[in-house]
Amino acid sequence: MATRTQRRRVLRISGAGGSADYRADLLAVEEPLEIRIGGTPLTVTMRTPGDDIDLAAGFLFGEGLLNPPVDLRQIRMCDENVADVTLEVAAEDVARATHARRAQRNFLTTSACGVCGKDSIESIRVRSRYDIAADPVQVSPGLLTSLPGRLRDAQRVFASTGGLHAAGLFSAEGTLLVLREDVGRHNAVDKVIGWALRAGRLPLAGHILLVSGRASFELVQKASVAGIPVLAAVSAPSSLAAGLAEEAGMTLVGFLRGTSMNAYTGTHRLTPAAVTAEAL
Amino acid sequence: MATRTQRRRVLRISGAGGSADYRADLLAVEEPLEIRIGGTPLTVTMRTPGDDIDLAAGFLFGEGLLNPPVDLRQIRMCDENVADVTLEVAAEDVARATHARRAQRNFLTTSACGVCGKDSIESIRVRSRYDIAADPVQVSPGLLTSLPGRLRDAQRVFASTGGLHAAGLFSAEGTLLVLREDVGRHNAVDKVIGWALRAGRLPLAGHILLVSGRASFELVQKASVAGIPVLAAVSAPSSLAAGLAEEAGMTLVGFLRGTSMNAYTGTHRLTPAAVTAEAL
Repeated sequence: MATRTQRRRVLRISGAGGSADYRADLLAVEEPLEIRIGGTPLTVTMRTPGDDIDLAAGFLFGEGLLNPPVDLRQIRMCDENVADVTLEVAAEDVARATHARRAQRNFLTTSACGVCGKDSIESIRVRSRYDIAADPVQVSPGLLTSLPGRLRDAQRVFASTGGLHAAGLFSAEGTLLVLREDVGRHNAVDKVIGWALRAGRLPLAGHILLVSGRASFELVQKASVAGIPVLAAVSAPSSLAAGLAEEAGMTLVGFLRGTSMNAYTGTHRLTPAAVTAEAL
Repeated sequence: MATRTQRRRVLRISGAGGSADYRADLLAVEEPLEIRIGGTPLTVTMRTPGDDIDLAAGFLFGEGLLNPPVDLRQIRMCDENVADVTLEVAAEDVARATHARRAQRNFLTTSACGVCGKDSIESIRVRSRYDIAADPVQVSPGLLTSLPGRLRDAQRVFASTGGLHAAGLFSAEGTLLVLREDVGRHNAVDKVIGWALRAGRLPLAGHILLVSGRASFELVQKASVAGIPVLAAVSAPSSLAAGLAEEAGMTLVGFLRGTSMNAYTGTHRLTPAAVTAEAL
C-alpha cells in the first residue's frame, strides 16, 4: 500500500492575537510517476502514489493510445515511481508512434497563423469511439444531489489533508463503484477510468462520474473517451468543457451542492419530465 | 481585451422538489494558447485568455528558458491563441536547445530501474538563480491573514463564474501589486511572474505570492525560480511542495483562512519574536 499522506511538523497560528503552537499535520503526498511503454519512457506526471497501474492505464487510454481489451497485456511497476506498460503489438512500433503523436501535440507543426486557435484545439482533441449521445440513461436531480455526500463519506484521506481531489464512478442508481483521490484531479479521473478499463467495464454507458472540483476541457474529454454519459462537478465548468460536452452528447452538471445544481448540457437525461419537456 | 467569460444558457435546479428554470450563466473561458519560440511551436497550455504575453514570458522563465533581462527581446501575439517569442540569441539555437530540454523531460532518457524516482524528480526540477534563503524579509501573521480578503476584493471575474484560480503578488507591507486569474492555477502564477519579468522586477525578493487554491510542487518551483521568499496558499500544500520550499529556504504558508494559517517552512520570517523563537 503506497503512502498517500506524510506527517510534517507545522506551526499553527490562529486567532487575531496570533497564538502559535507546533503540531503534526498530514500532507497529501505528491511524487512523480514515470510512464513507459515497452521500457521506453513516455511521460512524467505528478501524482499521489497508489493505484498507479490504474493511473497508467487510464492515462494512456485517455490519450487515445490503447484499444481495449486487445492492446493492454501487462502493466508492472518496475520502481515505486515507474510504471512500464507492455502492449500486444511490437513495443518499438507503439513507442515510435506514441512519441510521434505526443511530439506533434507538444510541438505543433502548424506554421501558418490565422487558424492556429482552431488547429490548437484540434491538436489536443482525442476522439471517443463510443456514441455517448445515444446513451438513454436517465437520472433524477435528487439522486445527483446525494452523490457528493456519498463521495465524501467514502473519502478517507481528504478529511485529514484537505489536499486531494476526488473522482467517483457511480451507477445510474447511485451506487459508488470506485473512488480515487489524487493531488491532480486529472490523475484521480485517470485512476477511475483505468480501473474500469482493467476490469473490462468499458464503455461506461449508463454511468455517472463525479469530480470534487471544477470541470475542465481535459476532464470532459477523458469522460468522453471512456463513454461516460453524465459528468457532475461540485464546482464550475469552463466554457470549453461545456462546449465539448455538448458536442459529445454528454450531460454536464456543475455546482452540485446541497439540493441544487446547474445543468449545462444534455438536460434531456434529467428526470422528471417537467425538466426534460424544455430540454436544452 | 480578451473575453474571460462566456454567457451560456443553463438549467438551474434547486430545492428538494427539484424546481427548475433556465437562466443565463457566466462560464470562465478556457482556450488553448500555443507558445512558439522564433516561430517554432513549443507547447500548448489550456488557459483563460488575457495577459497572454505575460503568460508566455512567465512560463518560459519558470521552465528555466530565459535569462532576464538580456534574453527577452519581443513577444507578440501572431493570433489570438498563439504567442511567438523572439530571443536575443539565434532563434534556431534556442528552439533546438529548448526542444531537446523539453524532450528530455517528457521522454526521460534514464533506462535503469531502482533510482528512477529520484531521477524523475531531478528531471522536473528547475534551479533558481536567486538565494531565497538569504532574504531577510519579515511578515506578521496579521498581515498574511488580511491578504485573501484583499485578493478577493480585487477579483472581478471569480465572483461571477466561480471557475477561476487567482494569484496575487504583494509587497511585504501587503500592497497588491498584480492580480491574475486563470482556469489553471499554474497559468495564473505564470502571468504574475511574467508581468514581473517584463516590468524588470525580478528577483521578487521581499515579496509575498498568494494563491487561491492549493500549493503544489509546480507552484513552489515557479515561485522559487522568481526569487519569491513567501508563498501563501488558501488551501493545502503537497508533501513535495513543502519539501521543495524547505530546500529553497522559502516560507510556505497553507490553509490561510480567517485569522488562522499553517506555516510549513521558513517560520523564522514570521513575526512576532514569540513565533520565531522556536522556528522550524
